[in-house]
Formats: sequence, C-alpha cells, structure tokens
Amino acid sequence: MVSVKKAFETVLNSTKYFGVEKVPFIKSLGRILKEEISADRDFPPFNRVSMDGIAIDYASFRQGQKSFEIEGIQAAGSKQIKLHNSKNCIEVMTGAVLPKNANTVIRYEDVTIKNGITTINVESLNDGQNVHIKGKDGNMGDILISENIIISAAEIGVLATVGKSFVKVAKQPKVMIVSTGDELVGVDEVPLEHQIRRSNVFTLVSLLERLNIYTETAHITDDKPILKTKIKKYLQEYDVLLFSGAVSKGKYDFLPEVFDELGVKKLFHKVAQRPGKPFFYGQTDCCTVFGFPGNPISTFVNCLAYFYPWYYKSVALEVDVEMAVLAEDVSFKPNLVYFLQVKLKNKQGKLIAFPIKGNGSGDLASLVNTDAFIQLPDNNIEFKKGDTFPIIRYR
Amino acid sequence: MVSVKKAFETVLNSTKYFGVEKVPFIKSLGRILKEEISADRDFPPFNRVSMDGIAIDYASFRQGQKSFEIEGIQAAGSKQIKLHNSKNCIEVMTGAVLPKNANTVIRYEDVTIKNGITTINVESLNDGQNVHIKGKDGNMGDILISENIIISAAEIGVLATVGKSFVKVAKQPKVMIVSTGDELVGVDEVPLEHQIRRSNVFTLVSLLERLNIYTETAHITDDKPILKTKIKKYLQEYDVLLFSGAVSKGKYDFLPEVFDELGVKKLFHKVAQRPGKPFFYGQTDCCTVFGFPGNPISTFVNCLAYFYPWYYKSVALEVDVEMAVLAEDVSFKPNLVYFLQVKLKNKQGKLIAFPIKGNGSGDLASLVNTDAFIQLPDNNIEFKKGDTFPIIRYR
Repeated sequence: MVSVKKAFETVLNSTKYFGVEKVPFIKSLGRILKEEISADRDFPPFNRVSMDGIAIDYASFRQGQKSFEIEGIQAAGSKQIKLHNSKNCIEVMTGAVLPKNANTVIRYEDVTIKNGITTINVESLNDGQNVHIKGKDGNMGDILISENIIISAAEIGVLATVGKSFVKVAKQPKVMIVSTGDELVGVDEVPLEHQIRRSNVFTLVSLLERLNIYTETAHITDDKPILKTKIKKYLQEYDVLLFSGAVSKGKYDFLPEVFDELGVKKLFHKVAQRPGKPFFYGQTDCCTVFGFPGNPISTFVNCLAYFYPWYYKSVALEVDVEMAVLAEDVSFKPNLVYFLQVKLKNKQGKLIAFPIKGNGSGDLASLVNTDAFIQLPDNNIEFKKGDTFPIIRYR
Repeated sequence: MVSVKKAFETVLNSTKYFGVEKVPFIKSLGRILKEEISADRDFPPFNRVSMDGIAIDYASFRQGQKSFEIEGIQAAGSKQIKLHNSKNCIEVMTGAVLPKNANTVIRYEDVTIKNGITTINVESLNDGQNVHIKGKDGNMGDILISENIIISAAEIGVLATVGKSFVKVAKQPKVMIVSTGDELVGVDEVPLEHQIRRSNVFTLVSLLERLNIYTETAHITDDKPILKTKIKKYLQEYDVLLFSGAVSKGKYDFLPEVFDELGVKKLFHKVAQRPGKPFFYGQTDCCTVFGFPGNPISTFVNCLAYFYPWYYKSVALEVDVEMAVLAEDVSFKPNLVYFLQVKLKNKQGKLIAFPIKGNGSGDLASLVNTDAFIQLPDNNIEFKKGDTFPIIRYR
C-alpha cells in the first residue's frame, strides 16, 4: 500500500504525450491550446472611432470654434475619407476609421445638428477623445494568448479576430472504459434480485466528457481468459484504459494478475485512502491503466483525484488547487487520507465546505447532494471547523 | 435609460417556457432535469457484501468459535445461496448477495484459510459488519434526484442505476445569433485596412455552448430593407435572437427601428452600466430579442449578465450568486453599475478578485487575462479593498 502523496507523485511522473492536432477554431471550446496566438495586425488596426458622433480637428475647438459644417460621413466598414477643411467636421460611426486630419470625436448626445451644421453643446473636450488609437490594445506580433490554456469563449473571440480559422490543440487520449462484474446488467434491463445495473462506466464517461474526452465503453464478464484476450487488444488500441471493479481481493478479481500476465507494469496497487483504497495503477510502453475499485464513490473520487491531474499534466495544463473552509468539526480515526463529500457554499467570498456523510462507498445517490470532495490528510484524527483543506469539485 | 436593477428585473419577469423533451440519459450531461428521479427498488436492493472475505453467523463467533469450514462461494451476480450449517462459513465477494443465514463478513485480510477451513485472526467482530443492509441508502420510491437541477456525472450514475435509459430534460431554446456591421469580414478572410473580422457571434456561440445551447449564426449587412426581411423571418422561426451591434446612435444603427416596425415590444433600451450601455431588450409573443452593443466586451458581459439569468429562470434553474473579495481599492466616478474584469484567486478558501483594467469595451484580448466580472454598484465612487461584491464568472 502506498500513501496518497506517493501515489499522486507516481501518477504525475508517468504522464504521456498524445500529440497535437488542428481543429476548426469554433470546435476548440474547452480544448487545450497548443500554439501561441499573436496579433496579425495592430489592435485596433486603425484609429478607431468608439462613439457615434462628429469628428473634428481639436485645434479648431481649442481656438474657440463651436459650429462645424458637415463635410461627409465615415461609416464603419468604409475606406478612410479625409477632412478637407479643418474648420469642418465629419459624421462618424462606432467602429469606423477616424477620418484623415480629424483627431477628436464628440458623441451625438453632446451636439445639435441643424441644416448641415453641427453645434457643440459642451464646454470642454479632451484632445483625442472617443478615439481608440491604432495599436493601443496590442501591436502586430504581440502574444495575445499563451499556449497550454483551456480555450474559453474569450479565446474563441480572439482566435476569430486574428483569423485563426484552424487552431492547434492537444490531441485527446483515446480512452476505453471497461466495467467488470457479473452482477451488472444494462441500464434498460430489469435486474434480477441479485443483480444491479451498470453505472460506473457512465459516470466515468461523463467525468471525461467534462474534459472534452469522448470515450468508448465495454463490459467484460468475470472470466479470466476472456478478460485477457480483450484487454490484450485494448492495450494495443488505446492510450488509456479505465477499469471499474475486479482489483480487490475477491476470488474473481482477476485484473491485477491479468495485467501482470499481459506485461502491464504495476506502479502501485492500493492507496492509503478512503474511499478507493484498492486502486491499481500501471503502464505498458504506450498504454496507461487506471484500475479503479468498483464501488461507485471509489471509482468517482479516484477518477477526479488521479486521472484528472494525470490528464492535465499530460497536456501541460496547470490547474490551481482550490481550498475550502471546513464548516464543522470532523473526526476520522483510520490513518488514511479521507476524501469526504461536501456541499459548497460561497458566503461573502469565503468557500465553505459542509460535510455530508453518505452510507459508505457504495452510496452513489449521496453524490447528488454534494459538490466536491474535501481532502483531509492522514496522520491526523480531528479536523477543526474553520481549517482549510484542498477540495476537488465535480460540479 | 433604465437601471441595472430594473433591467435585470424586466429580463427575469419575461422568461419563456421552451417545453421538455426525452433524451438518452447518456446524452443528458449538462441538461436541466425535468422529472423527479426515484428509486425503482431498495438501495442496495439486497443485503450486499461490501468486502471480499468470509460470511458467518455472528452467533457462532460470539460463542467462541474461531474456525469455520467453507461450505461454498457466493459470487457477485449469483443467486443467493444458503449457509446450511451455522457452524460453517461461505466465501463471499464484494457486491454479492449475503448468503441466507449469514449476517457478518470478515475480510480476507483478517483470516487464514487452509484445507477448506477458515480461521479468524482477530479478537473481536461487530455483528453485521461489512454488510451493506438492503434499503440502507434508500427505499423503493424515495426521491433520489429532484427536478430542475443540472445533470452532472453524479446524476448520470444514479439515472443508470435506476434504469432511466431516457430522461426528461428542459428543451433548449432555438437561438439565432446575428451580427451586423459592414466593417466585418469572415474569420478566414484578410481584412482591408478599415475592416475587422467577425468575432462577437463566435464568442456568443461559445458562451451559449457552455449552457449546452447549440445555435445558428448569420451576418446581415447594414441595409434596412434587408435587415427587416431577414429579421421578420427569424422572429417567426426562433425562440431567441441575439444581436451584436447596430443598437446605438449611429446612422446605420437600424435595429431599434426595425424591431419597432416588426412589432417587437421594447422592454428597455439603454442600461445605466459600463460597459454595455446601449443594450436593447424586447419581445414578440414568441420571440425574445437581446440586442447587445457591438463592442466585444459589451456583448460578452451582457450575455452573461442578462441572457444567462433569463435562460436559467426560463428552465427553472436556481443559481446562487457568487461573491468575491476585492483585492485592491477601485474608484469609478460615473453613476453607472461597473462590470469590472477581474482575475480570481482562491487564497485559503477566500475568493479574491484582482481588477485588471483593459483598454475599454473594444479590448477583446483583455478577456483572455481575466476570469470574471465583478459587479460594482452605482451610487458609489470608491470601492474598498476587502469589500465583497457579486461576480459573474466566464471560466
């Protein structure tokens, strides 16, 4: 049995590279960016009008001129026109190029227009006001987005702006999720008294879908030769295999010996934690094997606590640890790291974690009433209200 | 011009009902559940063995018996067998039915097995240990999931367990996102000096994709008759129209008058906020129109601050307001609600908001460096470090 610290280090020291691929930018939401995005031109690319109104030469206003004849209109999307006479003005629209020889924009709210003459109704103006100067937000070649970040709506907008119709992102691992256990039947079947429906594969599918990893699933019966044949094939075809069940001490828990016989190098088996202790982790040259214990909460917490960080590091994404404040005293005697389910509440900016005790690792329904696991360290029995600990959110 | 408070109330008082639909449960991640999910049987459905080991009748142990002959094996997924002789034991596997006449399970770690005889190596046992009693987590008919919640991986697991292969969820609104502005060209085009690429429609597409709303997009030229013809059609075909641009005071900002001529009832136009002031909001009997100002940050913040809550309330989802602590003093003179971009950091469970000043509402790239908007109220100029305010996250 290894400590959680050791298991976590082992997982992070055995990450894999899945490569990169180009995808249409509009399909890249949630993916990990794998190129620096730089400005293809200055931002804004021209002296940009930022208010609908009137463009003038400020010098004329400074010299006391209040009325300006309208020479023309500069619409957004039109070629730059020219203010021919510095005593005149041009109507300008938000997003338009500032006309040549003009430098200051007065919004419609602050002028009166009559018979082609604009009169300014305010006492003072700032030289250059309401003009978004070329290059103010960035210059051509500036890095606008660094690589190795998750692409959100904000980045999608920038990608569009700089014309990145295709963008380089981390390739996702090819993942197979396998359930074992002869007590399991399909979701649309009616189980006999001693049977239950498959559920762990679907929670795993959903947990990986949150990472934009689309997976395949299979169920293998508790029969060693069949397990061996199928897993041998999967080890060659997938980057990652996630198992749920058959890694503990039962007579039909064949997975650890099947892995061994198929050349999967065991990196650890059993972690000093609750729930999820019988967790198996191993690798071949090209495939990484997460053997999660079959109890629903065990599978769930191990996927979040180990597979997620392994994936993040594999794609070079840095993720901050989130902390929360324990809402009440907790006592936990076994010398194990305790992943305790909590309901989170934001109280005036403070993230408070309310422990909700389920009925043990088989109690899937209890996850519905909580938001995260709070990670309470080993070598400690009493955890005090008000102390802060890391949390792992799942919603 | 209306206040943010009034605009927000107006939006929340004009929500719409989009109906419900049944989808395969595995496609329901992120959707809003529209039925109560109850247990189709007790949980667990039988007295369930929760450790691999040996099942006995506790009475024999209490009377001093330490060695038990193995009568048989109860595997997971097998019909319940019977302990015929209460002085014997049965090997049992995690997930199996507890054999009849047995009531207590001792894990393999605590016994020695030799020649078909199990010897218990621990001094004390608890009557009924390692048995997950039928119905302990819930009884048949118990509500496991209430309606009107977002379906996460946890709920997917419960849906699978109770055999809900199809599940009732809120139908999504049919949404068209329209950009206007003759300065805009496509993402894969090279803009002329006075042009820029379309980006707001794509940020909107992505912001709605976060809500699992899949949208259509269109671009309409700044030509009033064309705008009118197309929008007339869209008003009939879609539940929601989102516009970006053409709602302000410009000569080609035709949208407000087009909406009026097409019978869109204006509920407000212009909100006392920065950025995003020229926001138009209106409705026909069947279509809701959000006319966002065309500056990138204006479109972005208005979608988050108004469309999101409107959608949440429309599908009856309650979402808590999240608060964060201001990391430094901020001063803002105009009597407007100020949506200020912030970078969020969790420091020992406290959510700290670091203001990052961009270069105004046109500075799309600044969104890349922030995580949320903090909402600073009007009627106030100085905002103090350490004070808490609501935030709107976008990542």
